[in-house]
Amino acid sequence: MSAPHIESVDFFYLSMPNIEDVGDGSQDACVVRVRAGGHTGWGECEAAPLPSIAALVCPMSHSACHNVLDSVLGAPLRGPEDIHAIGTRVRARSLDLLQAAHVLSGIDMALWDLLGHMRGEPVWRLLGYARTYPKLPYASVLFGDDAQQTLHKARAIRAQGFRAAKFGWGPYGTGAPQLDADQVMAAREGLGPEGVLLVDAGTVWVEDVDRARQSLAALHEARATWLEEPFVSGALHAYAELARLAGSLRLAGGEGAHDYYMARHMIDHAGIRFVQIDAGRIGGISEAKKVADYALARDVTYVNHTFTSQLALSASLQPFAGLEHSEICEYPLEARAVAYAIALERLERDTDGYIHVPEGPGFGMQVDPARFKPYLVDTEIRVAGKTLYKTPVV
Amino acid sequence: MSAPHIESVDFFYLSMPNIEDVGDGSQDACVVRVRAGGHTGWGECEAAPLPSIAALVCPMSHSACHNVLDSVLGAPLRGPEDIHAIGTRVRARSLDLLQAAHVLSGIDMALWDLLGHMRGEPVWRLLGYARTYPKLPYASVLFGDDAQQTLHKARAIRAQGFRAAKFGWGPYGTGAPQLDADQVMAAREGLGPEGVLLVDAGTVWVEDVDRARQSLAALHEARATWLEEPFVSGALHAYAELARLAGSLRLAGGEGAHDYYMARHMIDHAGIRFVQIDAGRIGGISEAKKVADYALARDVTYVNHTFTSQLALSASLQPFAGLEHSEICEYPLEARAVAYAIALERLERDTDGYIHVPEGPGFGMQVDPARFKPYLVDTEIRVAGKTLYKTPVV
Repeated sequence: MSAPHIESVDFFYLSMPNIEDVGDGSQDACVVRVRAGGHTGWGECEAAPLPSIAALVCPMSHSACHNVLDSVLGAPLRGPEDIHAIGTRVRARSLDLLQAAHVLSGIDMALWDLLGHMRGEPVWRLLGYARTYPKLPYASVLFGDDAQQTLHKARAIRAQGFRAAKFGWGPYGTGAPQLDADQVMAAREGLGPEGVLLVDAGTVWVEDVDRARQSLAALHEARATWLEEPFVSGALHAYAELARLAGSLRLAGGEGAHDYYMARHMIDHAGIRFVQIDAGRIGGISEAKKVADYALARDVTYVNHTFTSQLALSASLQPFAGLEHSEICEYPLEARAVAYAIALERLERDTDGYIHVPEGPGFGMQVDPARFKPYLVDTEIRVAGKTLYKTPVV
Repeated sequence: MSAPHIESVDFFYLSMPNIEDVGDGSQDACVVRVRAGGHTGWGECEAAPLPSIAALVCPMSHSACHNVLDSVLGAPLRGPEDIHAIGTRVRARSLDLLQAAHVLSGIDMALWDLLGHMRGEPVWRLLGYARTYPKLPYASVLFGDDAQQTLHKARAIRAQGFRAAKFGWGPYGTGAPQLDADQVMAAREGLGPEGVLLVDAGTVWVEDVDRARQSLAALHEARATWLEEPFVSGALHAYAELARLAGSLRLAGGEGAHDYYMARHMIDHAGIRFVQIDAGRIGGISEAKKVADYALARDVTYVNHTFTSQLALSASLQPFAGLEHSEICEYPLEARAVAYAIALERLERDTDGYIHVPEGPGFGMQVDPARFKPYLVDTEIRVAGKTLYKTPVV
């Protein structure tokens, strides 16, 4: 019997009917379906859907600027080494196509899911882990518009039994430092003294170390476990300087990384102690696992970045499923309806507040296009008289 | 009189009728026109046109994933500070839109050209340079398929009066090290003993330092001035290791940088001595000038990366036009017809082999859409029943 080959790669652009101009990244989705050898795999790009679709199908510009589909379709899929080969091929042949990394992310994810279904194995086992460890999910929410709202949010999270919570974006860092202090103290009050408190500045200070350092006292007082993304990902020098000033408060970052190297630079040169990887941006499960291995070797804690669907959540847990000491995990709590229309299953917390990486084949999630059909955005791209993309029929 | 505001931003997708699967990046183009206050500016993204257009117009995903147009249209344009504000706004509001940096590049370029026309000043003067210095162009060509072809290419370049040449891509680095040595020695022979020889490995060794070091002896023997992009841009650790092994042979890199920080990381952590910036990728003239300033402070030589049009060439010279010791410049020699259809002017060499940055307003180049009309690619993007993009009428 001949080896299975990639027969089709389909991108589905899903969206809420109205997108609000807020930090919530779960308002639309770019879902990927890959088929080979009678099996189907699903993945998700954490990316702008339309430019990702354009990068999937665009005409070639030159030998280092192919579209992504061209390097995937027809490739053999016999085992993990073939997935790695596809990734290497995409990165080389789409070197000058910036969006390609986000496109590859959803495809690589779907390839691992597909391989898992072909072999009847969960992805984490294909990645070399013998077992999984439970993860402690933190509720990931936006700061309220003011401290009072944040207090209510924090209390509600505690009432839902979460032992950890992350507050981010919203007004944090955009006004006077005292307002940030009020926000952080409100979050602590609402969570209670035992709750793990994480704070996400959402790159608000760009590279302004002086402004960022004014936030440190309140973060210490509120006993925050980490300060996430005080700066844009590239400002390694600013991270490194703040890390020296921050004492026991640890810095977290990495969600913007769109390849293994960018994450590595933050570990090597930015002084972060938690590396947060969005498998839907970094190039998929393959690149994320490389970061998990590197972080482990450098005593940096790997954490997933996931703000969207339960499919993306299961996928994002796989690269560190078998790492006992990477216990904490991001858990999207306020995702929009479209995010719940992708996978049938939800990863629910057990009575101790932990979630468990699925044991089923692939990501252990069932995706049914009939469920997400109401959110499908009709899209068509025509170039030089040819239709390069049209929304797949569901 | 009220301040001028950005009235329109138009993207033109140009292409040769047939794109060959070779390293020549001049086979298509993504040209940008911006209008404000009765003036017009032109720029060019060194990017895949279709995904760039999609990133210009795509629906919003969330507050950090706006399309680029949304942050540009209607903005005031009174001076350089407004261009910087537009760039800052795009980077913040398109943080999660990977392709945005390439899109911004052409727009930022067009904004500087526009401002130059508004003020009747060349862009380099708006950037703070009091005068320009002549640049020594190196003919930038692909390696031949074998050493014999490369020898002929090098002789032809010398016969055309070029005092410097760069050979890159093609078969270099893909076979046995001896073949690379033959190629490099053929280039040296063809250029003659006095010619400046530059070698571009085109990221062929990814991060394999052991393979790269096997190329060093021949590069020394051929007296190459630099070895460019032995590795992918992100492999800072591999660059740093090779830099230590390379002795007097200097490393060059940076063309893949899509923001100031990436270029800075190569200066800070990769040991490069020449930083090569494509203004059409890094975010435009504004980001490129930041790199030029940083490189100057670190005693690293700034060089443009330009493989396409004469418009892109003039634009790419502006950020280092006034730096006397950054003398060498890339000069596209084998560009396709479409690249010459964009600007009317060509930057020709003087009798000493130097080119001069134009003194005219903006980039000193006239762009006439009637000239590039034959290369215009008819493109249409429809989402949810609305036409988000249609090729502008010329």
